[in-house]
Amino acid sequence: RREPPAVPRGRGCSGCRDVVPTCERYAVRRLPFARLEDRDVAFFERLMPGRAVTGEEEVKPFNVDWLKSVRGKRAARCARYCYEKNLAVNPQGGNTGLVGGSVPVFDEIILSTALMNQVISFDKVSGILVCQAGCVLERLNEYVEEQGFVMPLDLGAKGSCHIGGNVATNAGGLRLLRYGSLRGTVLGLEVVLADGSALDCLTSLRKDNTGYDLKQLFIGSEGTLGVITAVSILCPQKPKAVNVAFLGCQSYAKVLETFTTCRAMLGEILSAYEFMDEKCMELVQRHLKLSSPVADSPFYVLIETSGSNSSHDEEKLNNFLDQAMASGLVTDGTVATDDKKIKARAAWLMWLSVILFAQGLWSLRERITEALTHEGYVYKYDISLPVGKLYDLVADVRTRLGQSAKNVVGYGHLGDGNLHLNITAESYSHSLLAAIEPFVYEWTARCSGSISAEHGLGFKKKQFIQYSKPPEAVLLMQQFKAMLDPKGILNPYKTLPSA
Amino acid sequence: RREPPAVPRGRGCSGCRDVVPTCERYAVRRLPFARLEDRDVAFFERLMPGRAVTGEEEVKPFNVDWLKSVRGKRAARCARYCYEKNLAVNPQGGNTGLVGGSVPVFDEIILSTALMNQVISFDKVSGILVCQAGCVLERLNEYVEEQGFVMPLDLGAKGSCHIGGNVATNAGGLRLLRYGSLRGTVLGLEVVLADGSALDCLTSLRKDNTGYDLKQLFIGSEGTLGVITAVSILCPQKPKAVNVAFLGCQSYAKVLETFTTCRAMLGEILSAYEFMDEKCMELVQRHLKLSSPVADSPFYVLIETSGSNSSHDEEKLNNFLDQAMASGLVTDGTVATDDKKIKARAAWLMWLSVILFAQGLWSLRERITEALTHEGYVYKYDISLPVGKLYDLVADVRTRLGQSAKNVVGYGHLGDGNLHLNITAESYSHSLLAAIEPFVYEWTARCSGSISAEHGLGFKKKQFIQYSKPPEAVLLMQQFKAMLDPKGILNPYKTLPSA
Repeated sequence: RREPPAVPRGRGCSGCRDVVPTCERYAVRRLPFARLEDRDVAFFERLMPGRAVTGEEEVKPFNVDWLKSVRGKRAARCARYCYEKNLAVNPQGGNTGLVGGSVPVFDEIILSTALMNQVISFDKVSGILVCQAGCVLERLNEYVEEQGFVMPLDLGAKGSCHIGGNVATNAGGLRLLRYGSLRGTVLGLEVVLADGSALDCLTSLRKDNTGYDLKQLFIGSEGTLGVITAVSILCPQKPKAVNVAFLGCQSYAKVLETFTTCRAMLGEILSAYEFMDEKCMELVQRHLKLSSPVADSPFYVLIETSGSNSSHDEEKLNNFLDQAMASGLVTDGTVATDDKKIKARAAWLMWLSVILFAQGLWSLRERITEALTHEGYVYKYDISLPVGKLYDLVADVRTRLGQSAKNVVGYGHLGDGNLHLNITAESYSHSLLAAIEPFVYEWTARCSGSISAEHGLGFKKKQFIQYSKPPEAVLLMQQFKAMLDPKGILNPYKTLPSA
Repeated sequence: RREPPAVPRGRGCSGCRDVVPTCERYAVRRLPFARLEDRDVAFFERLMPGRAVTGEEEVKPFNVDWLKSVRGKRAARCARYCYEKNLAVNPQGGNTGLVGGSVPVFDEIILSTALMNQVISFDKVSGILVCQAGCVLERLNEYVEEQGFVMPLDLGAKGSCHIGGNVATNAGGLRLLRYGSLRGTVLGLEVVLADGSALDCLTSLRKDNTGYDLKQLFIGSEGTLGVITAVSILCPQKPKAVNVAFLGCQSYAKVLETFTTCRAMLGEILSAYEFMDEKCMELVQRHLKLSSPVADSPFYVLIETSGSNSSHDEEKLNNFLDQAMASGLVTDGTVATDDKKIKARAAWLMWLSVILFAQGLWSLRERITEALTHEGYVYKYDISLPVGKLYDLVADVRTRLGQSAKNVVGYGHLGDGNLHLNITAESYSHSLLAAIEPFVYEWTARCSGSISAEHGLGFKKKQFIQYSKPPEAVLLMQQFKAMLDPKGILNPYKTLPSA
């Protein structure tokens, strides 16, 4: 709808794989915050005895090795102290972000939520969980599963990501198609503001129309407007039956048509519709020794159903598969049911020599990222587009790059219009980057897409926001930032271009 | 969690049924905005020939008769003019609000969305509808139904409410249990800000994490932060089967237990769980001549299922009803299926002498409001509470008021924790009001509930916000208001107490 504006293109540097403060590409300078002094460390040690981490070895788990670090529960007092002293703060959850949003750029103090890991309450009637921000997503899921519920989101990083970080980055993940975004499932937040004051919006109500919904501003703000310290979230019931189907399609058009058909026939039980191209399959086979459960195809689709009645769900899935096969939408397929047995559905369904379970089928899709890392340097893009155009971008990039890229692969959450476009090369190359960017961003902007569907902008992508947001929106965001964090101490250099 | 603060209690007045600017109870004074002059009207007439409504008769449909009024598409230019001239503006949709948020308090100019009634686009693959703010909800639902989808919200006022007003008030309604809140289903907004600039966030993407989600601030802000002029919204597929069951329960505890049981057994197809007490039934029978489809009971429950496979859905519903009857949760019940036939389910199921359809069962619940108006003056409260405590409030109010109230009734969206508490008397009485307020608000605050689950605060309830929000949250809201509308011209006297 709108033409992409001219964006200053970085000159790149070979060490650019991670966030490097002096990296020319990002051309960022340290702002005049105070520098941490011994008396500051002494203050934190008094506030949280034994929990102010400063040694070089101790801060390594926080993925940085050049700065002082603190962690602990008393986020509000920490923040107030930092505000008074003009010390910059980097809120950090499980540090699983992909855009450099959760690590310091210079010498910001890390305010880790790792020790804020307590469940506050769980209501079995309503399914509403209230917990501290540092709870690990997978632990929370185990906890609510014991009571017959599941967390409304699921991510590859679930074993280490924190719920506070999930909310701060508005994480999407694998269950969004079924349970919707965190904007609907998060009911309340407790947030520490830049000046150290606490904002208590930690309600547990499904409906509350008393004034503006302040918590929404903190969801997805990547720690730049406040530090989320507790979360109230609505958990759906644990499905009694989960089935997974893995299918081969002969074209992207068939992938789309299969989606429309399966949404109509599976309706309310459809919980995931993921796709991957043949290149992805090749890589997981080569590097991870996974075997494909279906015959070689240009595209693969993974469908998951989650429902309350296993025989109804299986019948729906069978009816869909019969129709998809009969009409030629799908040329091969296999089904894994929740009870860990593989069943042949019809003559067309391959018998597998190895028993693959639902988890096995999922791992073909979930381990693509891991397989890609074996290929050398990976340029990663996380794009939202109208589903009809999703794969055109992959094809166009492949054509454009030709032999200069080793692989150009596309996969992602098709049901949400979310493409993960990944390009690999033996090593980082500036000229390859220049061929990819801003081409990918301009292409996305022309289709009114988003240059970051779920990863956020963080440090690495903040300068590209204008491809997806008009200048007046960016200006308004900067005004919110200035209002809520007048000294700019919260996660500086992130999310927004400098005002 | 927090004790309710002392709120100045109005002295009340007998003309208080509607919004009366000089009403003592609200004790509001006109702010020093400019007054509309002939040259202003001339400007609007030039901008929108024939659409600047100023005559006394013409403005009657806008439900006010003492002020000049304009309507039309060119909301941005109108707003800019008003901003420059310091003229106050009252954005108005279908004018179906219940808290005086959509009508002027003094001489504010009405900016009606009535002529902004065009569908901009509809994507059949994704179900994403983009339309202007003045589209009537029921028309939109008809439009998308023709293409196999439904709007994600449904309200009693659907025949006249506008989608822009629905979003501006974060309307809840009858489908929230199934499709979630507008915070999740609204994908994009176009908004005219107080200074007349347009903010284009009208994207059609399910996922977009590029910067702060500005549109959320306008959802539920009741026209005080900007005028919504267009909406992008995700429509779910039209369910192929809809079933309605109407049940009698012997106690509120049984109503709750029935909810837990039915949620477990109906799972993903449960689309409404509404309840009403015997007083409500009495009133719809007496005033509207509706007949009860089940034997007299202290409580009634309406359950709706919406699914993609009618035989599966009926089987789930039957299994649930069998269990609910066998375990004594439900003492009588009837079922209306989508194909307009009533079927006896078992020996326990009454045969009806009159054939009631699903719509007929719904009307018992939907027409309670209408029945209440036949009883005289109605004091209306729209409360969110933990479901377990929901009916305790009705019982406590009934005990407290004794003979001074004609009726104290409770009904509502139990599945969402949303109680509609209504109290009737022959006529308005200040002493009765004083017995109800702040008692109801204090009771709600003690249970960490919301004093406005879905109606909003508007003009009538803005002074009660502190029962549901802490002072620091209200202060932050006032700061947002001051930032986005520095002259305070947008829907003044509404939503927030004066800063």
